[in-house]
Amino acid sequence: MSKTKLAIIGIGRIGKIHLRNIISHFPKASVVAVSDSQYPAEDFQRDYKDIFFSANAADAINHPDVEGVVICTPTSSHSAMIEMALQAGKHIFCEKPIDLSLERTTSLVNKVKASGLKMMLGFNRRFDPDFSHARKSLLAGRIGDLQVVKITSRDPGLPPIDYIKNSGGLFMDMAIHDFDMARYLMGKEVKTVYAQGLVLVDPAVGEAGDVDTALTTLIFEDGTYAVIDNSRKAIYGYDQRIEVFGSKGMIQVENNQHNRNIVYDADGIHESLPLDFFMDRYTNSYLSEMQHFIDMLVNNAPSPVTGDDALKATLIAVAAKKSVEEKRPVDISEIQ
Amino acid sequence: MSKTKLAIIGIGRIGKIHLRNIISHFPKASVVAVSDSQYPAEDFQRDYKDIFFSANAADAINHPDVEGVVICTPTSSHSAMIEMALQAGKHIFCEKPIDLSLERTTSLVNKVKASGLKMMLGFNRRFDPDFSHARKSLLAGRIGDLQVVKITSRDPGLPPIDYIKNSGGLFMDMAIHDFDMARYLMGKEVKTVYAQGLVLVDPAVGEAGDVDTALTTLIFEDGTYAVIDNSRKAIYGYDQRIEVFGSKGMIQVENNQHNRNIVYDADGIHESLPLDFFMDRYTNSYLSEMQHFIDMLVNNAPSPVTGDDALKATLIAVAAKKSVEEKRPVDISEIQ
Amino acid sequence: MSKTKLAIIGIGRIGKIHLRNIISHFPKASVVAVSDSQYPAEDFQRDYKDIFFSANAADAINHPDVEGVVICTPTSSHSAMIEMALQAGKHIFCEKPIDLSLERTTSLVNKVKASGLKMMLGFNRRFDPDFSHARKSLLAGRIGDLQVVKITSRDPGLPPIDYIKNSGGLFMDMAIHDFDMARYLMGKEVKTVYAQGLVLVDPAVGEAGDVDTALTTLIFEDGTYAVIDNSRKAIYGYDQRIEVFGSKGMIQVENNQHNRNIVYDADGIHESLPLDFFMDRYTNSYLSEMQHFIDMLVNNAPSPVTGDDALKATLIAVAAKKSVEEKRPVDISEIQ
Amino acid sequence: MSKTKLAIIGIGRIGKIHLRNIISHFPKASVVAVSDSQYPAEDFQRDYKDIFFSANAADAINHPDVEGVVICTPTSSHSAMIEMALQAGKHIFCEKPIDLSLERTTSLVNKVKASGLKMMLGFNRRFDPDFSHARKSLLAGRIGDLQVVKITSRDPGLPPIDYIKNSGGLFMDMAIHDFDMARYLMGKEVKTVYAQGLVLVDPAVGEAGDVDTALTTLIFEDGTYAVIDNSRKAIYGYDQRIEVFGSKGMIQVENNQHNRNIVYDADGIHESLPLDFFMDRYTNSYLSEMQHFIDMLVNNAPSPVTGDDALKATLIAVAAKKSVEEKRPVDISEIQ
Repeated sequence: MSKTKLAIIGIGRIGKIHLRNIISHFPKASVVAVSDSQYPAEDFQRDYKDIFFSANAADAINHPDVEGVVICTPTSSHSAMIEMALQAGKHIFCEKPIDLSLERTTSLVNKVKASGLKMMLGFNRRFDPDFSHARKSLLAGRIGDLQVVKITSRDPGLPPIDYIKNSGGLFMDMAIHDFDMARYLMGKEVKTVYAQGLVLVDPAVGEAGDVDTALTTLIFEDGTYAVIDNSRKAIYGYDQRIEVFGSKGMIQVENNQHNRNIVYDADGIHESLPLDFFMDRYTNSYLSEMQHFIDMLVNNAPSPVTGDDALKATLIAVAAKKSVEEKRPVDISEIQ
Repeated sequence: MSKTKLAIIGIGRIGKIHLRNIISHFPKASVVAVSDSQYPAEDFQRDYKDIFFSANAADAINHPDVEGVVICTPTSSHSAMIEMALQAGKHIFCEKPIDLSLERTTSLVNKVKASGLKMMLGFNRRFDPDFSHARKSLLAGRIGDLQVVKITSRDPGLPPIDYIKNSGGLFMDMAIHDFDMARYLMGKEVKTVYAQGLVLVDPAVGEAGDVDTALTTLIFEDGTYAVIDNSRKAIYGYDQRIEVFGSKGMIQVENNQHNRNIVYDADGIHESLPLDFFMDRYTNSYLSEMQHFIDMLVNNAPSPVTGDDALKATLIAVAAKKSVEEKRPVDISEIQ
Repeated sequence: MSKTKLAIIGIGRIGKIHLRNIISHFPKASVVAVSDSQYPAEDFQRDYKDIFFSANAADAINHPDVEGVVICTPTSSHSAMIEMALQAGKHIFCEKPIDLSLERTTSLVNKVKASGLKMMLGFNRRFDPDFSHARKSLLAGRIGDLQVVKITSRDPGLPPIDYIKNSGGLFMDMAIHDFDMARYLMGKEVKTVYAQGLVLVDPAVGEAGDVDTALTTLIFEDGTYAVIDNSRKAIYGYDQRIEVFGSKGMIQVENNQHNRNIVYDADGIHESLPLDFFMDRYTNSYLSEMQHFIDMLVNNAPSPVTGDDALKATLIAVAAKKSVEEKRPVDISEIQ
Repeated sequence: MSKTKLAIIGIGRIGKIHLRNIISHFPKASVVAVSDSQYPAEDFQRDYKDIFFSANAADAINHPDVEGVVICTPTSSHSAMIEMALQAGKHIFCEKPIDLSLERTTSLVNKVKASGLKMMLGFNRRFDPDFSHARKSLLAGRIGDLQVVKITSRDPGLPPIDYIKNSGGLFMDMAIHDFDMARYLMGKEVKTVYAQGLVLVDPAVGEAGDVDTALTTLIFEDGTYAVIDNSRKAIYGYDQRIEVFGSKGMIQVENNQHNRNIVYDADGIHESLPLDFFMDRYTNSYLSEMQHFIDMLVNNAPSPVTGDDALKATLIAVAAKKSVEEKRPVDISEIQ
């Protein structure tokens, strides 16, 4: 059985998930090279003695056995890594977003297209079993014509302020997943964005030039809409729900909880909280998205999340930010 | 519009419910006489000046306008009231049970049959909208052949020990509702009873010769079964659930809760408790059962809960008690 | 016991509910006069022989025994009825809205204030046990500072087009309940309104100059917001849900369903639909709101839904309509 | 890092689960030998070229590197495998039950005790996250004194009749898991067993001398009880629920469903079915139980499921069968 050979660039939280998933679950792929500028080489080599390791990304990307690179570095270096992969002729899996700059994003997406190389973006939630099952039902017409999608997407707690400063802001860093989900579920393109942003969790977020609470309305080309409700801090945990309303019904996707224990006492009936955060909630989605990337390389499957998908989500994020600043609905056509 | 004229004998908790329900909800019936040996006449007459009142039950039962009597006195006087109604030629609605003595119950049921007068027993839960909806589904074959019924029936708290002493015991006083429900839902007759009784809530219950916790298995004539789980005290309130399992599915009837508020906080997800007790939980069932009694009188409808139904539930209660005492399954045929 | 004496003006669907509720449930009030220009006098007098009836509203309002009038006529005559009640010196309960014209609404609210007479508006949902319980929890600080309220409010089906033509439009007729609910739950005033309106259910609605689907964002004075999602037609029935998110948690109010039966079969796990429409869903709220009006008259209780409340909801409705027309956020200050 | 070295005897459904789990998830253990009398050696060696394979169990058990054997053969050979492991001085993990014969089970349990070797039985459900979380709550006193445990345990479909013939019957093969669960959750020993067995799914089960539907009441030494409801065929899938009632509350463990999608349409509100069968439902439990076995070998942890546990569950199964045959409650003391 021939395997596709991959390099992983950056083994922080997400990079490690991909590393372990590929090793344990995918007989048709192997990790042959890993790079991380921070991770101690000796630690890595002790655990994974058969994998080439370098602090220098170029060494891993250009490793002659590597066919595809999995880019999990901080967002600020995504574009450099993509450029390097393109020059080396390697296929690309890149965590979202491609870049904080819309111009660079557009330019890279075009370069990838021109190169003939394959690229998939890490909008992992598309591969969550609950959400993808909902989409299958929608595509099958289970609830008729789609009229409204409502997305609740709240994090369990504020990230460090330093992270926020380099994140591109709530819309680019966090809500971008929801913008992609809205397009993915509705199968329609966004025409207008109206967003409201607030600092309710911590004034330091405002001082860093960002918001921690937001409401975004996306108006699709046919006038139907999505409402996206974000908060950086839900005290009850990671809240990831979706509701799609159509002419023949409604589909809700509820949270996954810690357990199915229900406790009755003199005060009420109590259930467990939602799973803590994306590492727990979206475990299966990381597996499934990597399976798709491997299928692209091994079986020539089409990319399930293209550069254009990334670009469109980025456009919405840019429009949302502009809408908050200018307190008015912003057309995507103004941004492009 | 001609109305049927009723007497209510005993206006404690249940009697008052029937009094108010008939006055407010049933244009085809009126209460013309009320009797209660304890209730102050002047208080009654102040509130209901058009209704004849007497401390003496015979006065109300024999009141010439009365066509039907609604017997809501303590169980110990049910048989005397029924006898009196029979002699007066009045139709009978009687709260359960007919009598603590099986012999007297049998004898009265036979006398009523011979009299040609109508009788309905107050197994109100049959008329609860949720349970009657479940039964409709069962009769319609929604879950195929019925194999098992599981009834959870727990009170929110112990009644006064004096009440318990005169109650006939948990099986005759409390579980008898569930015995009737098992027959009603399954549409089968019980052949064998195996019961386990415990004193877990308060030792005073044991000193009074009763149990406060019980598990009863009813084996129907075809071998299928019911399991009934009773407790005099569920700290979380009145627990009234049913589950029927069949060859094509399962129907559960869940508790009715105080409200539909769901509260999420750092500790969990919280719902409100079940409705407090029968006065709240079974409000609609009292209305509906009285509607049925009025239909019997006005439209000659058949009795939905006959003397035989009462007798059969009583037989099961007697068998259950015997089973606990003798620690063995007891056949209904041993009791009759 | 002295009773307050009421007149009911208009006995269509809602008027009849109030009539029956007052007769059956409120010992401290009686209906002494009823007026309806359409209802056959003989039919009414047959059923309610002790109540004065006239096809002419003035006769009922000016009836010398009447202390308060309950106005349940179509919206177009509300203002005339209020004027008449004011001249007659009678207290007022009026179904929402006061008037489709903002000017007339403002003028009437001011006249009522000047008159010293009491007025309560029929925003019945405030008195729904589930919603009022949620509000009690919010006021008690159960979920901390309130950040977002999300209201889902969908009707089970389109009303007749003729009704729609005279309704003042979706925002004034239907969403106005939700605008009031948003203010009621959040305890904050609305500053800006952004609404999106669509014709998705039936093109005839568009031809009548209205929309049948809408999304409204209300921005409160402190920047927090409400999202209101309306549809004239949810195929699964009357969808009335609310979710409030705060710094210490979240409260959801779920739909009331037909029953608590849960059916399992080879295809899935099935529950019953939400209650059909407002007559069923809000039964208790009509009782409770009338109790409040009677308390205003008998016990001098303050009005729980004042003219100002009605005016503020009307302002939001006008702003929402303007926002759809002008495709931009509209400040309430622009409307006043 | 030193690893404990294991042999797996039998790689049918369960054996393969353990094989893959140990390879992928447990850095402190490795599989060095595998035996299966049916599995083609070349197929095995192609996939796992570093693992010793033999059709002969003795070769694997006696392999000099092996410290512990994982016995996953059919029940009929469990005792022979255990004997062989004892002679070879190897620690033992054995799927339930030890043996269909109570005498052989007793004898083997005693031999293992005398040997000083470690043994763990595969009552995997103890390690299911939902059930073990419930037990943790029970041990912590969350619901006070434990009064009743109710277990619903229904398979999605009948196994082949040949399997049934060699299974030892429903009580020994299927309900034994629930008997163990009742002891595990309640922390009490069973004194008396009363069981009812029926053939409702397929007459062929009866011809094979078994039942396919059963109700078992276990009475613990303190008089409290467990009710276990088994069916070989629930049309809606694998039904695995538990409810424990105590003096301070109740804990329910609900089914794990395929997904968290809720679909509303004109017919009702629909959720997905429970996970299909034990391979899906108890995935995590197999991982966790093997982790415990490895901890026994590597860290000298005590066995979480001892020979005595197996013996006690077997005694209950034997008593249940006798109870059905003799239609009476059977004391465990009669069996021993």
